Amino acid sequence: MGSRMGFLYFPHLILFSWALSAHLLLAIAQRSTYIVHLDKSFMPTVFADHHHWHSSTIDSIKAAVPSSVDRFHSAPKLVYSYDNVFHGFSAVLSKDELAALKKSPGFISAYNDRTVEPQTTHTSDFLKLAPSSGLWKASGLGQDVIIGVLDGGIWPESASFRDDGMPEIPKRWKGICKPGTQFNTSMCNRKLIGANYFNKGILANDPTINISMNSAKDTDGHGTHCASIAAGNFARGVSHFGYAAGTARGVAPRARIAVYKFSFDEGELTSDLIAAMDQAVADGVDVISISFGYGLIPLYEDAISIASFGAMMKGVLVSAAAGNDGRGANVLNGSPWILCVASGHTDRSFAGTLTLGNGLKIRGWSLFPARAFVKDSPLIYNKTLAACDSDELLSQLSDPERTILICDYNADEEVGFGFSSQISQVNQARLKAGIFISEDPRVFQSSSFPYPGVVVDKKKGKQIINYVKSSVAPTATITFHETYVDKERPAPVLAGNSAQGPSKSYLGIAKPDIMAPGVLILAAFPPNLVSESIQNIQLTSDYELKSGTSMATPHAAGIAAMLKAVHPEWSPSAIRSAMMTTANPLDNTKMPIRRDSNVVATPLEIGAGHVDPNRALDPGLVYDATPQDYINLICSMNFTEEQFKTFARSSANYHDCSNPSADLNYPSFIALYPFNPERNYTWLEQKFRRTLTNVGEAGATYKLKIETPKNSKVSVSPQKLVFKGKNDKQSYSLTIRYIGDNDQSTNFGSITWVEENGNHSVRCPIVTSLIVQVWE
Amino acid sequence: MGSRMGFLYFPHLILFSWALSAHLLLAIAQRSTYIVHLDKSFMPTVFADHHHWHSSTIDSIKAAVPSSVDRFHSAPKLVYSYDNVFHGFSAVLSKDELAALKKSPGFISAYNDRTVEPQTTHTSDFLKLAPSSGLWKASGLGQDVIIGVLDGGIWPESASFRDDGMPEIPKRWKGICKPGTQFNTSMCNRKLIGANYFNKGILANDPTINISMNSAKDTDGHGTHCASIAAGNFARGVSHFGYAAGTARGVAPRARIAVYKFSFDEGELTSDLIAAMDQAVADGVDVISISFGYGLIPLYEDAISIASFGAMMKGVLVSAAAGNDGRGANVLNGSPWILCVASGHTDRSFAGTLTLGNGLKIRGWSLFPARAFVKDSPLIYNKTLAACDSDELLSQLSDPERTILICDYNADEEVGFGFSSQISQVNQARLKAGIFISEDPRVFQSSSFPYPGVVVDKKKGKQIINYVKSSVAPTATITFHETYVDKERPAPVLAGNSAQGPSKSYLGIAKPDIMAPGVLILAAFPPNLVSESIQNIQLTSDYELKSGTSMATPHAAGIAAMLKAVHPEWSPSAIRSAMMTTANPLDNTKMPIRRDSNVVATPLEIGAGHVDPNRALDPGLVYDATPQDYINLICSMNFTEEQFKTFARSSANYHDCSNPSADLNYPSFIALYPFNPERNYTWLEQKFRRTLTNVGEAGATYKLKIETPKNSKVSVSPQKLVFKGKNDKQSYSLTIRYIGDNDQSTNFGSITWVEENGNHSVRCPIVTSLIVQVWE
Repeated sequence: MGSRMGFLYFPHLILFSWALSAHLLLAIAQRSTYIVHLDKSFMPTVFADHHHWHSSTIDSIKAAVPSSVDRFHSAPKLVYSYDNVFHGFSAVLSKDELAALKKSPGFISAYNDRTVEPQTTHTSDFLKLAPSSGLWKASGLGQDVIIGVLDGGIWPESASFRDDGMPEIPKRWKGICKPGTQFNTSMCNRKLIGANYFNKGILANDPTINISMNSAKDTDGHGTHCASIAAGNFARGVSHFGYAAGTARGVAPRARIAVYKFSFDEGELTSDLIAAMDQAVADGVDVISISFGYGLIPLYEDAISIASFGAMMKGVLVSAAAGNDGRGANVLNGSPWILCVASGHTDRSFAGTLTLGNGLKIRGWSLFPARAFVKDSPLIYNKTLAACDSDELLSQLSDPERTILICDYNADEEVGFGFSSQISQVNQARLKAGIFISEDPRVFQSSSFPYPGVVVDKKKGKQIINYVKSSVAPTATITFHETYVDKERPAPVLAGNSAQGPSKSYLGIAKPDIMAPGVLILAAFPPNLVSESIQNIQLTSDYELKSGTSMATPHAAGIAAMLKAVHPEWSPSAIRSAMMTTANPLDNTKMPIRRDSNVVATPLEIGAGHVDPNRALDPGLVYDATPQDYINLICSMNFTEEQFKTFARSSANYHDCSNPSADLNYPSFIALYPFNPERNYTWLEQKFRRTLTNVGEAGATYKLKIETPKNSKVSVSPQKLVFKGKNDKQSYSLTIRYIGDNDQSTNFGSITWVEENGNHSVRCPIVTSLIVQVWE
Repeated sequence: MGSRMGFLYFPHLILFSWALSAHLLLAIAQRSTYIVHLDKSFMPTVFADHHHWHSSTIDSIKAAVPSSVDRFHSAPKLVYSYDNVFHGFSAVLSKDELAALKKSPGFISAYNDRTVEPQTTHTSDFLKLAPSSGLWKASGLGQDVIIGVLDGGIWPESASFRDDGMPEIPKRWKGICKPGTQFNTSMCNRKLIGANYFNKGILANDPTINISMNSAKDTDGHGTHCASIAAGNFARGVSHFGYAAGTARGVAPRARIAVYKFSFDEGELTSDLIAAMDQAVADGVDVISISFGYGLIPLYEDAISIASFGAMMKGVLVSAAAGNDGRGANVLNGSPWILCVASGHTDRSFAGTLTLGNGLKIRGWSLFPARAFVKDSPLIYNKTLAACDSDELLSQLSDPERTILICDYNADEEVGFGFSSQISQVNQARLKAGIFISEDPRVFQSSSFPYPGVVVDKKKGKQIINYVKSSVAPTATITFHETYVDKERPAPVLAGNSAQGPSKSYLGIAKPDIMAPGVLILAAFPPNLVSESIQNIQLTSDYELKSGTSMATPHAAGIAAMLKAVHPEWSPSAIRSAMMTTANPLDNTKMPIRRDSNVVATPLEIGAGHVDPNRALDPGLVYDATPQDYINLICSMNFTEEQFKTFARSSANYHDCSNPSADLNYPSFIALYPFNPERNYTWLEQKFRRTLTNVGEAGATYKLKIETPKNSKVSVSPQKLVFKGKNDKQSYSLTIRYIGDNDQSTNFGSITWVEENGNHSVRCPIVTSLIVQVWE
């Protein structure tokens, strides 16, 4: 749920295949939407504003290039003008027209419009956010900051978007509440301060499309869920069908929400996304949250990366999702100027409790969406049936409607029948209830249960089977609707589907940056969508538990926004540094955070660790980076002139590229070793230089603490940093000498600067990894 | 739900029929439990206490009468001693032993032990109870009063019985928290201050019985529900499967609860009930709530009546249920010394909304226990199927699992197939949803819905059918979980199952006395019981909607308790008078309160009207009655010496029976006319005398206002009453001259004393009715 991954989806090509003649085929190939980057310094002064310049540019192309046939577009057409996150426009052009455009003054680059894809409340407690201390108190629960949520819109009627307790809207806010289908301006308030929507790109692609919900109203639930995670107001007495019941609230419950909808039922295109981010920056948002991403794509064609660069240059942090394809997948949004967020489990779980006829109580995982009560029903374990792979077979039970059946995922090893298929078979057979034995019940936490059932691990499964085998008439009672803090397992744990770095789009910086709660997060949901089912009965809810890096991202955005409220002078890099250097690499058992399966997670999965908002409030030191530092970084990227200008807006000549450097002042270190089939390793060396800024109130001395990655040597100089006062800067150099790894594993350690006679400790992960195949 | 009516159930005879030999049959007939009333003045001074006297009496019988064979009891045996609500004991005796007992000094009467039967939160809002004014404010939400709830025990773990915000337990409290099965003393607190249980009577009847829950723990839900209605603490975020969601609270949210369990899974007997009430009075409860009753039984064998007389004489008001057998049934608990409570609907309703394919929205009644979402499904109306009386027929629909079927209760007039049968058939056929057309959807408010369905009235039904007939492909969407204030219908309305007076046990006083909310009341429920079902899946809940006079009774008890808190000097009669004379005979449309079917309800259904707690706080005048007045009343009852002493504890010789009078100083008037088949009516006359006590703060003058019943003349003298100061008493006489009624109907009016230049008005109902056949 909430994870719609996929890309490069061209609606007009699909339409063509069933509706158009061969003649038109030719025409269609001729005109499509391009994102065009321009150097604004080329804009003739005759134009009152850039929009006129863009229109005039299109007009001149129209005059220069012979008109071509097109199904939708009789002439080239401007879709959007952009000026905030980068300078340029999107336009519907033929190849000839594009060629003409390329000759226009100020042209930098152009690429095809693309489809963007989305990734998917106890968490404020889990993050130790409390009204009377720490970040909540310092930031007034975020009341002065504005979070721009770029997504599929919002369900403004949700209790999470009421403005009880909210003061006046900050005067600097310049955004609008744009009316549209089922959305009027009165739906905005002091909580939801802006709502805008962008679908000209979709319509440019296919003007015959009818935008069914032509407004910021959410038709999917993803946008509503993300917005309420970031900044939902306190909403009492809510739950997911009785699970996670209580008061829902966003991470920054008093922060303002501005919604920019670019994802519609009819598609989600780059041109609209950029328009949305461009507007958000112009409107004055402090932080942007975007739970969408591209698959494998070069940075200079990645709209989120390009627009985020522009936002960052203007002081707006972008929090974006690491992606939901799990271990081995390419992490999304891995640009150096984005806060890339991985997803973790919290310490809360949802259960049904099994009471066996012999009195033994066993807790199993469940989200059956009603408070069912299975009382003293016959319990059956049968080797023939235990695979639960045939509803026909199951229906032959003597009294299926009264029977609780034990399904063992591993019973039929050859078939390896899947869990969701088992659920489906047991539902078809209309059994009373099912007990599912699984290696790791957490893996199934996104599954729906259409009838009473619980998942137990192998150990508990064995206890149950032993009872059945030793009993003449085994029975069980099952109760549901349990929400509890799971003390049997550590927390946080990496979510199984959180994607793994480094980013193939840019290997030079370890990604993701940080982990935030992203599994079974309770947040607002539109009540006109189906959320769960009981047998064939579909159910809806005002709040829903959803999982994904989509859910982790607005957590990080809400925290970043509150940091901005407390430290308005901090750059996006400083905010990210504060969050990363104070993140916790350990779980609540004081052991390193793990993946689902008891293996320790690496910084290429969890970044610096689990975000700790109250520590981030006062990090002691930050690794800051200026816009020039980012220019120096892209100067080092071997970009073409056009690729460079796509980010920097104008030629490298107009920028200071005298110090190109891939060694960004970043709060993490990555060293990659090449694939070495000979295994004749030699020591390789990589040097880094970092500068720390003292953001503490007074001078302070920091001493070094290093955890060295396996197979590496790390040296740092100096070993002690003395800051004379606030804002004083001190630099150090760090060298990693590594010899590779026979089993090609990822190794990691850390460098921590620990304040003498003080409370601050400033930690960066160090990771060594086999180099991965990158985008070509 | 909550209505277990029935009586005279003898477990040992049932046991006999399958387990015992003919020899034992004879023996069993010989010894059973009797309730024995004694005159305590005969107790020899040699006995330290009455219990010794009772034991000694049994011992002397044992010596005097030859031992007889008995399955369970080898000798006569004392079960309970009683001393508070009356004096005497219960004992297991043979007929010979009973005969010997009758010759003992002080013997008054004896009768067989019997089985008692039970009857079943917006309401504080509906009753206009608010923390900052009226009765809640004046009584501190009842914090100083103790309500004794005699029922099936309690689920102490419920949030309604937490003691947050409760001050120390009143010092005068003498009760205990008795441990037992699944119940320890730590379960009592400052809210649940006492918990006791009484089942010696059950065990006396059959010592082989194993009391499965030998404690005050509730196994049925009825006691928990009633206790939380009377005095449940504020419990946030509760609902009945999403309906009626919000904060539950009792009528007197800070009053103390003392629970006396006499109703067990194994039975509920008079001897235990009396023991419970005897203990409650001894413990110091202020008011007793008892949602149980007997069917047709003479007062002098009605344990609730007898014990309530004793409680009343000791200043403890008993609020008891009028019974759930509806119109034409004999009202229960119709004794002059009991507050007899009828049940009414509130203004709240529960709904699902139907949106037809043409956009028309129609609200229908529903309590389907999940937030189902039936979206754009085919809607079928078919004359053959509309009776919904055959699941086989229904299953032949082309796609039953996708179909919404319209069921018309009147479609098959000959069969007259019932609503609950229709529900069952539609469930069997596994249709997507059902729409049920009914004369009056309120009639079905106690029905469960195991699958998505709504009930609509005939007018709305016609709209739906017209749409189906005029549409090529009719569809509908149904949403559930709506709780709303129903403005289409007046409120309150009499509950269809609330029993009708006068009481056949005593015709001289109109009963019931008052109506209180009793339909679909949300209150606490044990979560280990099945509450509702979805298809074959059983569900539980911590709170449940229940209906019945059982639910109305604790409402009245809670209000009476708060009045006692504010006016500790008021007698039970004064409290009842305050509630009755300020009750509202009109609904929220200012029209007389009606029965379900648009017919005006009579005082023999709703008593003085709907209870108005804030007005009862300050009634101006009360009709008080002293213990002597009640003695005068029973002196007039043509009781035998023994029957008299059953109530009065000692011989009429020891009481002042010089002024026997059936004309109790009661806040209502009833005149009965005989059945007259000749229909040659003449004017009959009945005279009453009443005395009013001024409980206002100062002197006041009251003027008369009369509504004369049809076919009657009412004269009152004087027409003006002048009270010089507080506690001043003034009397008046009232004569009803009535000529009967050709159609033998019940007519009614009222007499109201209206304060001049003041706010008080003191109203009594007047009712004329055909005499009913009484108990012989």
